[in-house]
Parts: sequence; structure tokens; C-alpha cells
Amino acid sequence: MQVDLIIEARWIIPVEPETAIFEDHSLVIHYGKILEILPQQAARLKYQPATLKTLHQHALLPGFINAHTHTAMSLMRGIADDKPLMEWLTRHIWPLEQKWVGENFVRDGSMLAIAEMIRSGTTCFNDMYFFPDIVAQQAIQTGIRASIGLIVIDFATVWAENSEAYIEKGLTLYDTLRNETLISTAFAPHAPYTVSDEPLKKISLFADELNIPVHMHLHETRQEVMEQQQKTAQTPLQRLSQLGLLNPAFMGVHMTQLSENEIQHYAQTGAHLIHCPESNLKLASGFCPVAQCLDAGINVALGTDSAASNNDLDMLGEMRTAALLAKAVSLNAAAVPAMTALKMATLNGAKALGIDDKTGSLQTGKYADVIAINLDTLETQPLYDPVAQIVYSACRQQITDVWVAGKPLLKQRQLTTINTDELNTRVQHWQTRLQDNK
Amino acid sequence: MQVDLIIEARWIIPVEPETAIFEDHSLVIHYGKILEILPQQAARLKYQPATLKTLHQHALLPGFINAHTHTAMSLMRGIADDKPLMEWLTRHIWPLEQKWVGENFVRDGSMLAIAEMIRSGTTCFNDMYFFPDIVAQQAIQTGIRASIGLIVIDFATVWAENSEAYIEKGLTLYDTLRNETLISTAFAPHAPYTVSDEPLKKISLFADELNIPVHMHLHETRQEVMEQQQKTAQTPLQRLSQLGLLNPAFMGVHMTQLSENEIQHYAQTGAHLIHCPESNLKLASGFCPVAQCLDAGINVALGTDSAASNNDLDMLGEMRTAALLAKAVSLNAAAVPAMTALKMATLNGAKALGIDDKTGSLQTGKYADVIAINLDTLETQPLYDPVAQIVYSACRQQITDVWVAGKPLLKQRQLTTINTDELNTRVQHWQTRLQDNK
Repeated sequence: MQVDLIIEARWIIPVEPETAIFEDHSLVIHYGKILEILPQQAARLKYQPATLKTLHQHALLPGFINAHTHTAMSLMRGIADDKPLMEWLTRHIWPLEQKWVGENFVRDGSMLAIAEMIRSGTTCFNDMYFFPDIVAQQAIQTGIRASIGLIVIDFATVWAENSEAYIEKGLTLYDTLRNETLISTAFAPHAPYTVSDEPLKKISLFADELNIPVHMHLHETRQEVMEQQQKTAQTPLQRLSQLGLLNPAFMGVHMTQLSENEIQHYAQTGAHLIHCPESNLKLASGFCPVAQCLDAGINVALGTDSAASNNDLDMLGEMRTAALLAKAVSLNAAAVPAMTALKMATLNGAKALGIDDKTGSLQTGKYADVIAINLDTLETQPLYDPVAQIVYSACRQQITDVWVAGKPLLKQRQLTTINTDELNTRVQHWQTRLQDNK
Repeated sequence: MQVDLIIEARWIIPVEPETAIFEDHSLVIHYGKILEILPQQAARLKYQPATLKTLHQHALLPGFINAHTHTAMSLMRGIADDKPLMEWLTRHIWPLEQKWVGENFVRDGSMLAIAEMIRSGTTCFNDMYFFPDIVAQQAIQTGIRASIGLIVIDFATVWAENSEAYIEKGLTLYDTLRNETLISTAFAPHAPYTVSDEPLKKISLFADELNIPVHMHLHETRQEVMEQQQKTAQTPLQRLSQLGLLNPAFMGVHMTQLSENEIQHYAQTGAHLIHCPESNLKLASGFCPVAQCLDAGINVALGTDSAASNNDLDMLGEMRTAALLAKAVSLNAAAVPAMTALKMATLNGAKALGIDDKTGSLQTGKYADVIAINLDTLETQPLYDPVAQIVYSACRQQITDVWVAGKPLLKQRQLTTINTDELNTRVQHWQTRLQDNK
């Protein structure tokens, strides 16, 4: 049988089933989807590929799913580090956003982020920012998969005037994007402290009706929880629960402030948790009790947050931080083993976004969102367990090739759909402008 | 004037003085030492270099000092991850060591570690392991700077029979190495729970007499502190204090269990703290209160610990983890800013090892232990602050060149003193043997 692409690899780690590691197998891809994983010799007999790629030092994995980011903020990477959270927001990030954010800023910032994400093995991202229409355009243009956040905030910004206008623009964008193969949408009410009850109720209704998820910052800091309690005698979680938002289409991001009861309740709702360990550390927000949440049955996915509070969009590094941190936080060196961390960075993200029928693992019938990592470097030798080496020892530059729906976006470290010279020029331009006004 | 080497760089970050960042300057090196840092034009007029290196996209920094590692354990990288600490030690690491550790194991394991360290910008390491004579040989052969631990444990191993024999072998090795330019030595009594009072008293005397430091695991876990208290009604810190070990020649490694009083007392002794954040996370040991320790005036340096509990020897990543983690642990996003983290990874290490007259910063008269990081990658753009980009965004593969005492050990990512093909063959050989017996 003629097929589009066969990738032969030293290891194939499909993530589903969780314990499988195929050695010296081939991944067969046709019409952008995974047809079969089988031993290399058998594949050569059974299929004639238009393209044969041999990666005998490499592991193939499902691409990473960055389940929470604000791509355009990459233009503010490192502009104001090591500041207390409120000073960082009110004196640096918000004034810069007010002055500079517009279509061009979002176009160039999201392109920089997409370039960085592809180069570090991310094949899908879940975004929340202004001008989501522009972010969607950039994703479509570059061929990366994306979940585009239909942002909603109570107050006026350059994107919309009030919550009604945000929701209206969101619904229009939903309509525009509904037939895009690689794009899904999610309502993205910013946070409990920036979106009031009325718009949240509407979002809940529309999300149900359109069958799309809701993506929201939640219990990020102790201050957030305390201020809500002072105002309404409810925690943000209690409030969202009462508004009917906590269900299997809900993604709560950060969740560093959680009691054992809250964990059990959240697990029962079927809502997803997006863990952003490096951002939580950098902004001193606290520690998400990831091991307890996993034990309770919560689906925990991973996100980098923006490059302004991380300061990279490197899911390989994020996965490592998540695996290391969970052990110390739970006082258990066996917590979040390497394979669990890898699952959080891939399949769990797909589940959270409601696209695990399409991506998140290397399963027959899913799209071929695949990455290759070269493990033949001194830093990943000796090699007793490829998953341990990927999670605990590899670095992003060992990711050599990336495919989304079978299309190569990174070939031997070279981006195929992004003109990096042009991108660099644009980034330089923003650097000059922001630097003079920071 | 004729000089050996001039390196022109976009940025030179000398670490001392702490706030200095020189743009478009030259580092002038002669007889292995730093002669001057001055503007590029002025350098071209004043000096005629035998070699001129131009690095116009790069930052030059002092090389990293890995202030705590067990280099030879690199051969066990990833062999037993995600296990509770005591199971990891007693069922995996110790049986493997008992079976395999010998001169050849230490030779090949430390060579693998040195290769990895040079490739990630480490120019000096502080080792603690069996066969320190072999580790010293490997360091001398490859040209990296090292502080060699004269290990002492109560019980018999393949290296020595009892504490007296360890001390005697240590003294002999001290004598052998005392005239090596790049090598210093430190007594390395393993930990409070493995070395009894008598040998510790002797070590204290000899260390004073020879004017060399003492390097010891300390307050690594809650269990260690509790067990000591049950035995002697003293904490390990109290016991070492009583034995006279806590002074400016002492390095306590890990220190995750510290009360406010203990921090103040430790600061008063002038002893140094070696922080190993990734190992502490991975083994679920706990969180060292780094920000409090720095505030109290303790000199805090950084170490990776071994590749068996990390699982890399990447000081760039360790520095990043230290900077991020300290913020969440101290609930202060301004704690351990990027420049402080960089100082911990360089100058503070030199101070802890008692070699800050020789290395640790780019100061006239010190040895030229220098590294170059290419910041012209998408992942470190835009660039508002080179130190922030190095600490929070760069990855080890951006380190292109490394010099120790003016001698190039890494040239455009190529090791100059290590045959990597031969090293790979040896590592493969160990992998096969250990794998079959793990």
C-alpha cells in the first residue's frame, strides 16, 4: 500500500497505552493521520512511503500541548523580572500592554511564540489574549494546532468595550473558525476577579450550546482567594461552582490554593486543572498540590503561561519542573514519575481541550502530531530508560523534527513555515520601541 | 603589547562588581590570566593578540562553579528514578556501587561528567566520591579546574577500610596534588550519619593545619535531623558546631531543614551553604530557605549533586531552578533576582571553595575561567537584559566556548581535550553491564 510518510525510530513512545515503548518500530502516516505503528521490517514489506524518514538515535513522541499561554506576551520576555507580582503587573506589564497592544503587536508576538514552541516540540497551544483572531491567523499560517481563547473581561481594552462586546466578538470568531481543521476555540473569561457573574452565566450557556470549553485563571494566589472571600463570603471555586461552570468542559489554570476538600470536590465535577509550575514559582504564587490532584482523579495538564513570567515556552523544561517540584511538594520522591509528567504534557492537555479524539497520543486514527528527540548526546547517556532521559535530562535543542497533522513544521532544527530573518527584524523593532518606554 | 588572547564580545558580565555589564568590550588574557577589560577599540590600539576571538552575539561570563557533585555517578544517570529516597539508595544505588565502583568506573564516569560539565559552561567542580585520585587525574588530563574531595566514611568500601585509612589516603592525595595549578582539595566527610565524632575531630585538626576546606552533606532531610536528635539530643548542626567544624572553611551541602535560629547561627560561623535545588526536589528532601539564608549573610553557592539524582550536571538549569524556587519558597517574587543567581553559580562557589583569589569572576589578576553564551536565538529574543535572558531563558546548548586558565576546552561546541567517540564507547560498555544487573 502507498502511504505518505513512514518514520522509523529507535523508540516510539505513544503515551497511550501508558506503559508502551516500541523499539525499532515505524510510524506510518497517511492523509495526515496515524495509520499504524509496527516493526520496521514489517512496515517496509507492507507499505511504500512517498517519504521515508529514518531516525535511529531518536525517540518519537506525541507533540507537546501547551495548555495555557498568552503567546503575544513573548515580546515582553525579560522586560521586568524579579518584581513582586502586583508591582510587576501594575507598573510594568499593564502599562506596556495599554500602550502597545494592538493587531501588529499580537501578530508579531504570537509568531515569535509559535516559532519558539515549534522549535521546542509543542504542536498545540491553548491561548488567552487580546486579538484572538490574529493569533488564530498566525496559527493557521504556520500550521500549528491551537485552541484560541475567546477572551472576556469586565473592563474596556483595545479589543472590546465591555463584557457583552467581548462575548459578541468571541461568538463571531467562533463562527469564523469553526471549520478550520487545526483550530478549536474556548471561552476564556480572564479570572474570577476580572469577570462578574452576569457574563460568566452567559459564557456558561454559550459554552454548553456550542460545546466548547471554558478556560480561566483560578485560585492562582492566596490574595485572590482571600479578596473574593472578603467580598462574597465564597471562595472563587465556590462561586464558579454555584454559577454552574465547573464541569468536564472547564479548565482551571494555576490552582495553587486548594484544600483537600476542594480537591475532592473539583475531581467530582470532572473539570480539568492546568498546572503552570514555572510561572507559579517565578511570581511566588505558591505550589499546586499536583500529586494529590492526580490521586483524586483530576485530569492535570501543563502550561508554560506567557514568556513574560517564565521566561520561555519550553514544555520539555516545564515537564521536568513539574515532575521535580511535585515530589518535594508532596514529600514523596515517587510522585509524578517521568511517564506521568509526559502524559500531563501531551494526552492530558488534549483531554482538557476536548480534542483527545484528534491528538495527544500516537494512536491509529489520530492526527500525526509527532516530535522526534535525538537521545544520542552525552547529556542523555547512558540510557537505561528513554522516558527518564527525555523528562529529566534532555534539553529542547535535542528536538530535531516536528510534524502537525503529518506536515513537517521543523526539519532538522529548521522551521519550514516561518521566515526567521523577517521575524527577527520585527522582534528587534518591538524591542527598540518597548525598551525606550519600559 | 603582545598578549595571548583577546575576546571581543557584545556583553561582558564580570559578576564582580555585581552591577557591571560591559557592552562591546574586550577581555584581554595573558599567561592564562585576565589582564584587562576595556572597550574594543581601545583594546585594538593597546594590545596585539596572538589570537583574536570575536563574539558579537555573545555574553562572556565567569565559568560556572558546580560546588557539589559526585561526578562518577553519571554512569547511573536515570537507572532508578522516581523511587522513595531510602528505596533508591538501599535497593538501587548502593548495591550497584558495591558491585561496580572501582578505578575504571570512576575514570569513565568522571570523564563523562567532565565532558557534560564543559559543554554546559562549568569550569570548576567540587567532587565527593571514591577514588578521588582518579577524578583528579581526569580533571588534570582535561584541563578543568576541580576541588577534589578527600572522602571519609566510617565503614569499609573499595576505597578504604575504616575512617583512619580514609584520612590517611586523603592526606597522601593532598600531598600528591598540592602543586597542581588547577586542583585544590577539601576534606569530604560524607554526612553526620555516616561519620562519627573521632574522625570528624581529626578532620577538623588536619583541615586547620593544611588550610583546606571541609565539604559535607548536612541537614539534607528531616529524617536525618530527627534520627540524630533521637540518638544524641542534638541536631547535626549542633553536633558539628560542638566539634568545632563550623567555620569559614566549612561547606554544608543541602541544608533543607533550617530554623530561623539555625540560619542566624550558621551565618555567624562564616560557614558556606551549597544549595542543590534539583536534587532536593527530585529526592523530595525539602526546600532550602535560600532567600532567608542570603538575607542573613550566608554565602550560598550552587551544586547539581550527581546525575543520578538530578539528572544532569547543567549549572545553567540549576541556576534557573534556584532563582525560580526561591521566590515561591519565600513567597516573594523579588527574591533571588537573576544577578544573585548568577553570583551563586560563580563567585559564591569560588568563595566556598576558598579559591576566589583565583576564579569566580572576571577580574584583573584572576585566571581566565570564562564562558561565552550566544544570545542571538529566538528563545532569548527580544533582549532587554542579558542577565535575565541567561538565567531565565537560555539553554545549555547556547554555550559555545569555554576557557579554563585561558585554555580553550570548548570551541564552537566542540570539546578540545576529550575524545568523545572513545568516551561514548566506554559509556556504552558500562550501560550494558549495569543494565543487566540493575
